[in-house]
Amino acid sequence: MNPSIPVEVLAVLDRRHPRGFDFADSGRPVLSVHDLAATRGDGVFETFGVRAGHPQALNAHLARFVRSAASLDLPEPALELWRRAVLAVAERLAGVEFSVIKIVLSRGVEGSGEPTGWLSGRPAPDHSVARRRGIDVVVLDRGYRHDVAATSPWLLQGAKTLSYAVNTAALREAARRGADDAVFRSSDGVVLEAPTSTILLRHGDTITTPDLGLPILAGTTQDSAFDFARSVGLKTSFSLPRVAELENADGVWLLSSVRLAAPVRSVDGRPIRVDEQFTGALVQHLWDRRD
Amino acid sequence: MNPSIPVEVLAVLDRRHPRGFDFADSGRPVLSVHDLAATRGDGVFETFGVRAGHPQALNAHLARFVRSAASLDLPEPALELWRRAVLAVAERLAGVEFSVIKIVLSRGVEGSGEPTGWLSGRPAPDHSVARRRGIDVVVLDRGYRHDVAATSPWLLQGAKTLSYAVNTAALREAARRGADDAVFRSSDGVVLEAPTSTILLRHGDTITTPDLGLPILAGTTQDSAFDFARSVGLKTSFSLPRVAELENADGVWLLSSVRLAAPVRSVDGRPIRVDEQFTGALVQHLWDRRD
Repeated sequence: MNPSIPVEVLAVLDRRHPRGFDFADSGRPVLSVHDLAATRGDGVFETFGVRAGHPQALNAHLARFVRSAASLDLPEPALELWRRAVLAVAERLAGVEFSVIKIVLSRGVEGSGEPTGWLSGRPAPDHSVARRRGIDVVVLDRGYRHDVAATSPWLLQGAKTLSYAVNTAALREAARRGADDAVFRSSDGVVLEAPTSTILLRHGDTITTPDLGLPILAGTTQDSAFDFARSVGLKTSFSLPRVAELENADGVWLLSSVRLAAPVRSVDGRPIRVDEQFTGALVQHLWDRRD
Repeated sequence: MNPSIPVEVLAVLDRRHPRGFDFADSGRPVLSVHDLAATRGDGVFETFGVRAGHPQALNAHLARFVRSAASLDLPEPALELWRRAVLAVAERLAGVEFSVIKIVLSRGVEGSGEPTGWLSGRPAPDHSVARRRGIDVVVLDRGYRHDVAATSPWLLQGAKTLSYAVNTAALREAARRGADDAVFRSSDGVVLEAPTSTILLRHGDTITTPDLGLPILAGTTQDSAFDFARSVGLKTSFSLPRVAELENADGVWLLSSVRLAAPVRSVDGRPIRVDEQFTGALVQHLWDRRD
């Protein structure tokens, strides 16, 4: 056994290869400048945590990957191929305590009619400080009404697309305001999601998350967080939280696959209580997930 | 002189190269899978027409490129370098009657802190049928209020970003409805722009285009179209056109750098008059542009 830990793993889907994908040198360029991922953000992705070589919530991520691809009229991802490829990449990260795998399906090189797919894995960044101390967030208008997903599917609001420029701009705006992250609200005042996280609110003994009919992504970590909440005797529900309910919550968390659960310690400068014990147990629950 | 016409030209910005860029083999991969162009649509671009080696509206495109980059907090593009690179690529396309050059600046490989820039040139697709016969369009809700650009700059509405998944989804929705193109309206009913074009409306002897305070891209072809309109005795103005004004217009055109001017012959199935003579003269004016 080679004890050295690989810094990075890259695999590329390849129909000519017997197993349907092949490993590649992550230091070398792989994509054409005409790949629609790079010229149009025209593709979908998933990012998930991998603990000691075991991908977390793999089925949930693959299911969302398929739904996202359908939203964009991409060819349906061959699930079993992707699963095998993910497991093969994860295996090479077995020596890493916690790593992250991103899988991407783009519409491919313009005019080729053939999608491009790749998987990259690397050690996860260290989010322990955010998980312990909490984060400051600001509320930003996402510009959409809360019901836009139902009326205008071409806005792709349920899909995890590569077109993330607005999400990254929102994070820069948050930083400009001295915050760590942003929370999007709809133009009519409903709390939606964070640029790369799902929101969890606590009021008394109830944990809520924004309803999936809103223009948001169905969080893959939120399911597990609800499981945890119920296991400690809390009620769980989906709702259309107003911004005031965010500001007066007894607890707020941003959930995502790699940071897991980050407690919010302030919203637009107003303090939010951070329950270290509850958060610690929630993070541990998410950390221990298998699929 | 080699009389063969290159099918495609690719140049990549390269700080180590004495002239600041270098030509590359367009058939080979150039981009890392970790380039934020490919993973986040996090960059800006311009596309312009090149007639027999002469880029059209180059200054206007470069100026918008700089504005887009500023919106995304990208490093300011070195204008003179980009100009030289564009002209060098265009020179290699001198044997092509009409070609298209795309220039792209991305935030670069994640974590590198260094942007990626490239230029690709190729013969333009043939849009003569659309220009002559006209196109059918459908109106789609862009989901944003008409004043969102002023209130929420993080939505990047004035910037030409690589995050175009919604634009391409709108084009697929248009095709599903049997149309050639889409026209976006705001959630409160103001006509905005098409996914890859600026809109021009004619009512009597007045030509209007949606106001630049709207969440739209400032069209680089629209200036020239206004020049043309005034040269034939029409008035020009910016406005906040309602959808009804689109439907009852005496003429509608979609303007873009490569298709130039495509007359609209129907909006959601209602016929719009196509003035072949005016359109032909407008296209010729745009075709003859130099910078």
